[in-house]
Amino acid sequence: METWDAITSRRNVRQFDARTISDADLDRILEAGRRAPSARNRQPWDFVLVTDRAQLGELSKVWRGAGHVADAAAAVALVTADSDDERSRSVAQYDLGQCTMQMLIAAADLGIASGHASVDDQDQARRVLGLPQDRIAVYILDFGYPADRRLKPIVNPDRRPFDEVVHRGRF
Amino acid sequence: METWDAITSRRNVRQFDARTISDADLDRILEAGRRAPSARNRQPWDFVLVTDRAQLGELSKVWRGAGHVADAAAAVALVTADSDDERSRSVAQYDLGQCTMQMLIAAADLGIASGHASVDDQDQARRVLGLPQDRIAVYILDFGYPADRRLKPIVNPDRRPFDEVVHRGRF
Repeated sequence: METWDAITSRRNVRQFDARTISDADLDRILEAGRRAPSARNRQPWDFVLVTDRAQLGELSKVWRGAGHVADAAAAVALVTADSDDERSRSVAQYDLGQCTMQMLIAAADLGIASGHASVDDQDQARRVLGLPQDRIAVYILDFGYPADRRLKPIVNPDRRPFDEVVHRGRF
Repeated sequence: METWDAITSRRNVRQFDARTISDADLDRILEAGRRAPSARNRQPWDFVLVTDRAQLGELSKVWRGAGHVADAAAAVALVTADSDDERSRSVAQYDLGQCTMQMLIAAADLGIASGHASVDDQDQARRVLGLPQDRIAVYILDFGYPADRRLKPIVNPDRRPFDEVVHRGRF
């Protein structure tokens, strides 16, 4: 798919149909994440791929807003080192955001929709994903084919107007 | 360009040639940023586009590692609300990362290279960009045509191995 079509087709989806995602497509999404840029190329991330239905159900309990993960075809937990240093945490968040977007665009390119979930209950995440004590799951991305309509370019996205967001030269 | 080619062609560039970027291409990059997803669709960002050579020079002084901004064809300052709340700051960082990646992929799709710079001297950023006191510039993205070789898909990126980063089912 053309890049611009992938960028403009991506939307947050919370209801997926019953189709699974091929291993090749999952690997491509993960590869996109692996290639993301990060400060000093530190790559402060590990990805845990979950496709087992029962495990997806358990994973959906990490946050009250994560119910949609239970019905996804696959989820990727973004895992990073737990840190006491706010500056490190902040940079890692930015880099995880970059990594996320790379995966979501790669998915949209394949007609695969996606959603995000926060992680509130780290103990649950640690149990379900087998994380070491020094790691935390920061976000869960979930993927699948949309239950309603297939992805296609959105002409008028629900966003602040261009001329409000964009300033030329000075704020 | 095909999405996968844009994703795999993007690389951090710090030396740009003298070509400017067309207004249409700059607007497309900014539009990609505007469309990025964010927690509760809060869109915690404003973009300040800088293309004036003298202003780019002043902007490059916001951090010791930002020298490359001086020679870019254009820069986009990512501006957000200053906040006392760490949770809000953290979520905004993640969302700014998503927004960044949308812009960098949209740029790569047009053959335009990009780089990132942190902002250390907020007073300088405020002066150069005319920011209100309640806003900070979090990152500067800079864009241009690479001085060395044009963007093309990278086969073996300098990243941790796929099988080290990707865990299946459990960490």
